[in-house]
Amino acid sequence: MTTVGFIGLGQMGAAMAANLIKGGNQLKVFDINKDAVDNLAAQGAIACSSAAEAVSDVGFVITMLPNGALVRDVLLGGGGVAAAMPKDALVIDMSTIHPLETDALIKDLAVQDIEMMEAPVGRTSDHAVAGTLLILAGGTKDQIARAQPLFDLMGSETVDAGGPGKGIRVKIINNYMSIALNALSAEAITLSEKIGLEFDTAMSVMSGTPAGKGHFTTTWPNKVLAGDLSPAFMIDLAHKDLGIALDLANQVGVPMPMGAASRELYNISRVSGRGRQDWTAVLEQVRDLSGLETKA
Amino acid sequence: MTTVGFIGLGQMGAAMAANLIKGGNQLKVFDINKDAVDNLAAQGAIACSSAAEAVSDVGFVITMLPNGALVRDVLLGGGGVAAAMPKDALVIDMSTIHPLETDALIKDLAVQDIEMMEAPVGRTSDHAVAGTLLILAGGTKDQIARAQPLFDLMGSETVDAGGPGKGIRVKIINNYMSIALNALSAEAITLSEKIGLEFDTAMSVMSGTPAGKGHFTTTWPNKVLAGDLSPAFMIDLAHKDLGIALDLANQVGVPMPMGAASRELYNISRVSGRGRQDWTAVLEQVRDLSGLETKA
Amino acid sequence: MTTVGFIGLGQMGAAMAANLIKGGNQLKVFDINKDAVDNLAAQGAIACSSAAEAVSDVGFVITMLPNGALVRDVLLGGGGVAAAMPKDALVIDMSTIHPLETDALIKDLAVQDIEMMEAPVGRTSDHAVAGTLLILAGGTKDQIARAQPLFDLMGSETVDAGGPGKGIRVKIINNYMSIALNALSAEAITLSEKIGLEFDTAMSVMSGTPAGKGHFTTTWPNKVLAGDLSPAFMIDLAHKDLGIALDLANQVGVPMPMGAASRELYNISRVSGRGRQDWTAVLEQVRDLSGLETKA
Amino acid sequence: MTTVGFIGLGQMGAAMAANLIKGGNQLKVFDINKDAVDNLAAQGAIACSSAAEAVSDVGFVITMLPNGALVRDVLLGGGGVAAAMPKDALVIDMSTIHPLETDALIKDLAVQDIEMMEAPVGRTSDHAVAGTLLILAGGTKDQIARAQPLFDLMGSETVDAGGPGKGIRVKIINNYMSIALNALSAEAITLSEKIGLEFDTAMSVMSGTPAGKGHFTTTWPNKVLAGDLSPAFMIDLAHKDLGIALDLANQVGVPMPMGAASRELYNISRVSGRGRQDWTAVLEQVRDLSGLETKA
Ligand SMILES: NC(=O)c1ccc[n+]([C@@H]2O[C@H](COP(=O)([O-])OP(=O)(O)OC[C@H]3O[C@@H](n4cnc5c(N)ncnc54)[C@H](O)[C@@H]3O)[C@@H](O)[C@H]2O)c1
Ligand SMILES: NC(=O)c1ccc[n+]([C@@H]2O[C@H](COP(=O)([O-])OP(=O)(O)OC[C@H]3O[C@@H](n4cnc5c(N)ncnc54)[C@H](O)[C@@H]3O)[C@@H](O)[C@H]2O)c1
Ligand SMILES: NC(=O)c1ccc[n+]([C@@H]2O[C@H](COP(=O)([O-])OP(=O)(O)OC[C@H]3O[C@@H](n4cnc5c(N)ncnc54)[C@H](O)[C@@H]3O)[C@@H](O)[C@H]2O)c1
Ligand SMILES: NC(=O)c1ccc[n+]([C@@H]2O[C@H](COP(=O)([O-])OP(=O)(O)OC[C@H]3O[C@@H](n4cnc5c(N)ncnc54)[C@H](O)[C@@H]3O)[C@@H](O)[C@H]2O)c1
Repeated sequence: MTTVGFIGLGQMGAAMAANLIKGGNQLKVFDINKDAVDNLAAQGAIACSSAAEAVSDVGFVITMLPNGALVRDVLLGGGGVAAAMPKDALVIDMSTIHPLETDALIKDLAVQDIEMMEAPVGRTSDHAVAGTLLILAGGTKDQIARAQPLFDLMGSETVDAGGPGKGIRVKIINNYMSIALNALSAEAITLSEKIGLEFDTAMSVMSGTPAGKGHFTTTWPNKVLAGDLSPAFMIDLAHKDLGIALDLANQVGVPMPMGAASRELYNISRVSGRGRQDWTAVLEQVRDLSGLETKA
Repeated sequence: MTTVGFIGLGQMGAAMAANLIKGGNQLKVFDINKDAVDNLAAQGAIACSSAAEAVSDVGFVITMLPNGALVRDVLLGGGGVAAAMPKDALVIDMSTIHPLETDALIKDLAVQDIEMMEAPVGRTSDHAVAGTLLILAGGTKDQIARAQPLFDLMGSETVDAGGPGKGIRVKIINNYMSIALNALSAEAITLSEKIGLEFDTAMSVMSGTPAGKGHFTTTWPNKVLAGDLSPAFMIDLAHKDLGIALDLANQVGVPMPMGAASRELYNISRVSGRGRQDWTAVLEQVRDLSGLETKA
Repeated sequence: MTTVGFIGLGQMGAAMAANLIKGGNQLKVFDINKDAVDNLAAQGAIACSSAAEAVSDVGFVITMLPNGALVRDVLLGGGGVAAAMPKDALVIDMSTIHPLETDALIKDLAVQDIEMMEAPVGRTSDHAVAGTLLILAGGTKDQIARAQPLFDLMGSETVDAGGPGKGIRVKIINNYMSIALNALSAEAITLSEKIGLEFDTAMSVMSGTPAGKGHFTTTWPNKVLAGDLSPAFMIDLAHKDLGIALDLANQVGVPMPMGAASRELYNISRVSGRGRQDWTAVLEQVRDLSGLETKA
Repeated sequence: MTTVGFIGLGQMGAAMAANLIKGGNQLKVFDINKDAVDNLAAQGAIACSSAAEAVSDVGFVITMLPNGALVRDVLLGGGGVAAAMPKDALVIDMSTIHPLETDALIKDLAVQDIEMMEAPVGRTSDHAVAGTLLILAGGTKDQIARAQPLFDLMGSETVDAGGPGKGIRVKIINNYMSIALNALSAEAITLSEKIGLEFDTAMSVMSGTPAGKGHFTTTWPNKVLAGDLSPAFMIDLAHKDLGIALDLANQVGVPMPMGAASRELYNISRVSGRGRQDWTAVLEQVRDLSGLETKA
């Protein structure tokens, strides 16, 4: 039986801790919200009245907290976890925090001879309850192997992101893309509604095109990712169509700040001589603006 | 045998006209580029030296031109098509133009007792060649039925968009979404590359989440579209994660103008009291900013 | 006595026409709003029932209309002005329209042997009434000289913008800058209010810095405009400060989309190796993105 | 003679410390860059080899460091200043840092019975050398009075920003406005250049309008600030003109992300029913989006 100190029993943490208990582990739990602690105790956990108490004599310390400042405070600041925990226990931060904070924590704990890995999670609280989270593991192969039995109780899939700090990085990329896409989708569908289209018509068209399926698996693989920028659909035409959409949106009254921003990226692409390249060349353009080497 | 006057033999039009010929129709073709006309003539079309000539004695007039100003000029201006064509022929504009220009053309041609519908196309020039375009038909049921045999030669799928002007509207929505998404994808992947992630890792994670699959068929149906804004993933957390991604991008040097714009939409959502609503509520927020009624 | 055909008697045009009458000119006026015509007639103008009627036997034709499509329609389309006016009268469009539309009108009227210049106006309707508009004259030296007596009645200052089409261009630049600046000012002052600053404190500080005085006459002349990019204040620090402001705004709930967009421009500047250049180098950066040659 | 512990002798700090010495104060200086310390020692300062050493037996501790994390570390972390300094000395942070970090530092030092105020500076390193900085003092009246003699040596003007934490806030607002305005100016002038205007023409026009003079002292006082939203220049027209400018910029190839963002703000304003209000109403709109009460 493994003993786990679990700190942070909110919407996510409570469900994850419960699944660890169900899987046969001993849980020592702490949260500044006493009700949350009691709730877990009722499910078999040992209630603790401080983070330090929760990490004495454990094999793992798991944190599932709102942000990086709190994780740091719990581990290295007032929370006193680093001082109170066994040196050979593995710290696993599963919160979504700033990757540079993760890097700093790993480094600062290493100074105290404590190993830390990160394993932020994908999906939602429903999946936390069901034990079907996506675990984005950032750590050494050894660390991931050691934590795997726990991951298997909380999630249905573990991705080895490629090393320490890579788990939180892929998490942030994924969230960036899905959260911004959510807002972009809202712009498109609101315009669609305001110009009188049936929702189902718009959906059925978009579900069959990159608008709904994304570009990663449709337009990109044979074009920009394969180094082929000959146009299936030109940057110039894409730029024209964005201009039409934005003009329409400004006439009928749908604010589309993301679309407006994207148009200027295509504008830059044209100035850079990409007007007659394939629209997937916008990736090359952003890479260029980021100082990465490009093909054309 | 149907006779079709086809104007605009570029990357798209040439292929579409060729497929109409192969399907047994007589084509009278015109383009300001004489080579393009000769090319089609070599495939069996009747070469014409003006748009007006191309539309005499035809059953359909199809335009496939770069923009709305040209379509107007060809049909109602110097091109003289409206004056030269039979009153009972059907004009089908298949170009991607501004929907308000489409509306105006339909109205202005109606004054001259000429019927016009629009049928812009989805997909790319490869599909034009293969005859597998997506036809987004905007017209009356009768008009669509009349044009259907032609559409079937140029495309593999026809969507009845719901009436005159709706075809070009759904086309613009679809292009807006896919073109802006293309740029957003470029931001995400460039950040991913610049922070040291393997492309395959990022791809494999995102292909299983709304980042890669989009929201229309994943997060939206049971939440905002069903009127349920209870949080599976909160606006507050989404806003936090965007902030992390943007901070990271600004530290490592990846410009993400679309992400920056989206963060301000979540910012507005929070001010509007949506912080603890589900992230799909961003649709409600954009609808609200557009003067549409919202639930919360 | 000069006879002027004046078309478009709205908030601006009515006052401008009135000032021309007061200055001793004979005015023939038309507007689709009959009340507007009557109103001018009461002040001594000849009321006309069409644009064509208003331009017969005049020395000048002035248009002051909402947008370029209407100007074109009045001059060359249904309005029939070009056909009805004397060939030696000078057309002066004083509306704010798209410069490319101005260019096209000048060209299309020239084909009919009619000279046109543009003279859009700066300032507001109060100045139109007072006869103190800023006249941004785009035309040949001869055209401007010919129109000058009229300009002097409508405005207090005439700028020779440098040739045909330049008047409307400088108008658009000026409006772009002042209109966007208005929105940016709103972002800054709203944040100021929301973080508890007295309006007077913020104002008194900013009125003494480039924030209030602008950059054209303060930071730019001795730096970027003089080719000196050695840092008085570094791009890196400017980028840092923007990040602080945006973080603060996102914490307290002030949407600042313009600030967010500007941060990405500084982000790009840093990637381009300008981090330790003077902040005025952002001009070089935008010039670079626009394909203009830069110094560094 | 006052003794001042001065930490951070970079581009700004070195000059400011030198001016304090010239004014007759005894300076104890520290910087992690030993050359910077030696340099000040050559001008009469006492060179110290740690921050803690520099603050023993002083009346004031001044920090002028790159960012808030460093200020915190110097004062409360590894730097050990709080522990080493006399309890009755006054800490003055003159760096530009995040206001919430300033608030936290004031609070955390108060726990140790140490008073801290902030006094970030306006203007540039040239002014630091000349002793003509703008001092934005955030503190109690007593604290400001106490520090005033030092401020008078470093700057030519002190603004009492209204209390603790207000100095850094007005600094951030001012910098936000001037830094973003710098980028906006770059967009406008680049477009101006690319459409063939003489720089002097554009400048001379803009220097006489809100484009060059700003809105705070021109359009706002009698309109939105006076509660009068009757239109001198309508939101609808402003929105139209922005659209023209952006269309032009996208045709000639000048990326204007800030202008694009601002247009969407006017778009929102129109949806909110402000189309016929004065353009200064955009302030009301941003206030509204920020949850502040508005007049209309
Ligand atoms: N909710 C989701 O769908 C979701 C999905 C993926 C990742 N995440 C991430 O998971 C993390 C947790 O999210 P959540 O939704 O459970 O948040 P939550 O706010 O519901 O829970 C956070 C818990 O931490 C506790 N806490 C705060 N400070 C503490 C301290 N000093 N010591 C002990 N406990 C403390 C709180 O009392 C609370 O119970 C966040 O980083 C979030 O971004 C959430
Ligand atoms: N290329 C694509 O992948 C794609 C996909 C979907 C929709 N579209 C749309 O289809 C339309 C055509 O695109 P394309 O790629 O074929 O463009 P293109 O530039 O290759 O072809 C346009 C053709 O129109 C001709 N033309 C221009 N003015 C004319 C006039 N006055 N009279 C006669 N001919 C004239 C040109 O000579 C040219 O051959 C556009 O509206 C585009 O947005 C293109
Ligand atoms: N209002 C300002 O502060 C201001 C300042 C500078 C420039 N401008 C520009 O001046 C122009 C006029 O602005 P305004 O404020 O007077 O607008 P307005 O809407 O008050 O007036 C326009 C007038 O044109 C008339 N009109 C429309 N179509 C017509 C037609 N086909 N024939 C004859 N008359 C027609 C309308 O009936 C109306 O009276 C615009 O281009 C605007 O951008 C306005
Ligand atoms: N440069 C300007 O025009 C300007 C204008 C107004 C405000 N500011 C602000 O003033 C502050 C200082 O700016 P600067 O231009 O002098 O920066 P700088 O980088 O030239 O100087 C910073 C100094 O701090 C020293 N330092 C860093 N960490 C230290 C530590 N732990 N202990 C002791 N010294 C340390 C560095 O060695 C360096 O000498 C910044 O917050 C900046 O935003 C600058």
